[in-house]
Amino acid sequence: MQLTGEPEVRPVFRSSGTGELFQLLRDGAPRTRADLIAMTGMARSTIGGRIDLLLDSGLVAPAGGAGSTGGRPPATFAFNPSSRVVLAVDLGATHARLALTDLASRVLAAHQAPLLIAEGPDHVLAWVVAQGQRLLAEAGREVGDLLSIGVGLPGPVEHATGRPTNPPIMPGWDDADVRGILADRFGSAVLVDNDVNIMALGEHRTAWKDVSDLLFVKLATGIGAGIIADGRLRRGAQGAAGDLGHVAVPDGGDVLCRCGNTGCLEAIASGQAVADALAAEGVGVHSGADVVALVRAGDLRASLAVRQAGRRIGAVLTTCVSLLNPSVIAIGGIMAGAGEHLLAGIREIVYQRSLPLATQHLRIVGSVTGPDAGVIGASVMAIDHVLAPDAVDLLVG
Amino acid sequence: MQLTGEPEVRPVFRSSGTGELFQLLRDGAPRTRADLIAMTGMARSTIGGRIDLLLDSGLVAPAGGAGSTGGRPPATFAFNPSSRVVLAVDLGATHARLALTDLASRVLAAHQAPLLIAEGPDHVLAWVVAQGQRLLAEAGREVGDLLSIGVGLPGPVEHATGRPTNPPIMPGWDDADVRGILADRFGSAVLVDNDVNIMALGEHRTAWKDVSDLLFVKLATGIGAGIIADGRLRRGAQGAAGDLGHVAVPDGGDVLCRCGNTGCLEAIASGQAVADALAAEGVGVHSGADVVALVRAGDLRASLAVRQAGRRIGAVLTTCVSLLNPSVIAIGGIMAGAGEHLLAGIREIVYQRSLPLATQHLRIVGSVTGPDAGVIGASVMAIDHVLAPDAVDLLVG
Repeated sequence: MQLTGEPEVRPVFRSSGTGELFQLLRDGAPRTRADLIAMTGMARSTIGGRIDLLLDSGLVAPAGGAGSTGGRPPATFAFNPSSRVVLAVDLGATHARLALTDLASRVLAAHQAPLLIAEGPDHVLAWVVAQGQRLLAEAGREVGDLLSIGVGLPGPVEHATGRPTNPPIMPGWDDADVRGILADRFGSAVLVDNDVNIMALGEHRTAWKDVSDLLFVKLATGIGAGIIADGRLRRGAQGAAGDLGHVAVPDGGDVLCRCGNTGCLEAIASGQAVADALAAEGVGVHSGADVVALVRAGDLRASLAVRQAGRRIGAVLTTCVSLLNPSVIAIGGIMAGAGEHLLAGIREIVYQRSLPLATQHLRIVGSVTGPDAGVIGASVMAIDHVLAPDAVDLLVG
Repeated sequence: MQLTGEPEVRPVFRSSGTGELFQLLRDGAPRTRADLIAMTGMARSTIGGRIDLLLDSGLVAPAGGAGSTGGRPPATFAFNPSSRVVLAVDLGATHARLALTDLASRVLAAHQAPLLIAEGPDHVLAWVVAQGQRLLAEAGREVGDLLSIGVGLPGPVEHATGRPTNPPIMPGWDDADVRGILADRFGSAVLVDNDVNIMALGEHRTAWKDVSDLLFVKLATGIGAGIIADGRLRRGAQGAAGDLGHVAVPDGGDVLCRCGNTGCLEAIASGQAVADALAAEGVGVHSGADVVALVRAGDLRASLAVRQAGRRIGAVLTTCVSLLNPSVIAIGGIMAGAGEHLLAGIREIVYQRSLPLATQHLRIVGSVTGPDAGVIGASVMAIDHVLAPDAVDLLVG
């Protein structure tokens, strides 16, 4: 089964099919037939048939003791997150992380390795297939156990098709059929998004589940944001929401960006930009990672440079705060390793420039989830898509 | 009945109560009991009881001929939008519009008049009460027919409480209990939001119902935006989303804003800012309305000034486009009357500075709905809140 995109706006009412019944059980609490009848108003015979379909699929299993023996139908049922597995893939510019998770996004097996995205889709996706098969074997699961696959890529992705769109650091990937290639090899649904969106999903689900409005900002070679509004990831009309790297920094001057414009956030405040500025002053750094290492070693010049970059990022985030009014901004990506020096620069400008109503309850914090945010988010995306009500109706009949 | 705020994130599954059944009928199409049983899987007796409750409430009425006579239960049912009415109130700085609408937001009676918001809540809300009662009488309806009241105010509103929060142009209104005052007088639910959000709702519902991602921008004395993402208005954590007036314009210079910062969008590109700049050149204008009149009369200096303001607005909207990836930006407010001169300035910068994926399908257009956007949006807000599934459950039992 290959689905064509994540469901967007849901109708308020949906026919109370098997998928709807399953949503009631997805919180993991065991429930009886009588519970489900009371909760739905469905006829007893209807409930019975739908529970049988869910039991057959394995997504739901008998729970607790009484009634589950002796040939009688089990008395209580619950979501069974170990019934299927999900392959979660987080591809960066130079590094890849893969995880096999259960349906609660718990990691069963994981692998990470250097991998150049610039090697192109044939090479990279063949590697993903091989490693995915290895993880399945390691966890003792079959290809048939795969419910779905979630993939994050370091560039713009048209979410509806899963295809990269003119990705600047991914030569050879423009319009590549990532979904089709992986679906052919694994026979399961494939969801593709940019790396920042999956990190935002992972961070939100792991650390801020009850926060309805969150902005996740990735600061690395590139700069981007993932938007959680009213509890869900918002991707915009073409899936390009959050693409902050080429926003003009107020008073950003005429630093030329690789995109052709001047004063872009990425040209002024990315890890590489900070490293280049320090190198020009004679500091021996080549990358954002070098800068973070110096900051952690207590180097004053590196700390000041990171704080100044934070102010430039803050100048753009003030507009984001005014526009979206989030209650949490979580800063991730490799530059987040610079810690309080970076956060202090961001906070200084955001709290100074934004209106009180938008900042009085705003927290600006480092990412809690760290390097696993991407694979966890890829797993969440892949699970939520295939276990949405309409999709479950298709899945179990 | 007074409700405490619009429902935020909806759970995927909701118990199939009367409210859920009503959502099925809200599209206006007539349906039989058999239709509803097939659509929901509910037991016949359950459906029957819930339909009776909806018929008693008047929200649903018998539709079509057969079966609606002779004492037998009616064969088909449909939403009855004329069963109740809604009072929609759009308060600006110096002007008020009121409308009485049916439950499909069709205007039954309307009134507009000059009104200074600075007269304070006691005076203004007493006027609203008097005019609301007059509109009810004019339409031949009772206070008891009022389903709910929607109010837009020209300043920040904490949507959860309906209270203005430090509104800069509304002296005496800080923390005013708008909802409580009107609920006491009319005995119905009251929803309050800022004027830009209700205009965005009205514009979206009237002209762009099938567009999932839209940004409505009001350009007047103040500047603000309403965000439609994934088909719904997004208000942010405190209801302050879209507050763009005090965002720093890239290269905005050191023009002092009344908020105390420099280079704010409102200080540079609001109707008053354009009028002040032209007046300093010796052009005889005092307000944004004067500027619009000159542009429409073909005045070159006014047209150039409006185009330049459009560029400054465009510089901020590029960040909004990168962040939200809308497919439509609708420009409303009094300055939208300057038409193509304004739009050309905005488009020039947005299409130049934003990435192709975000702009290739982006339309930047004048508001279609015009001056009625506010009252229609206030009506939509007030109806959607009280006719949401959980609210209907409370309403009809």
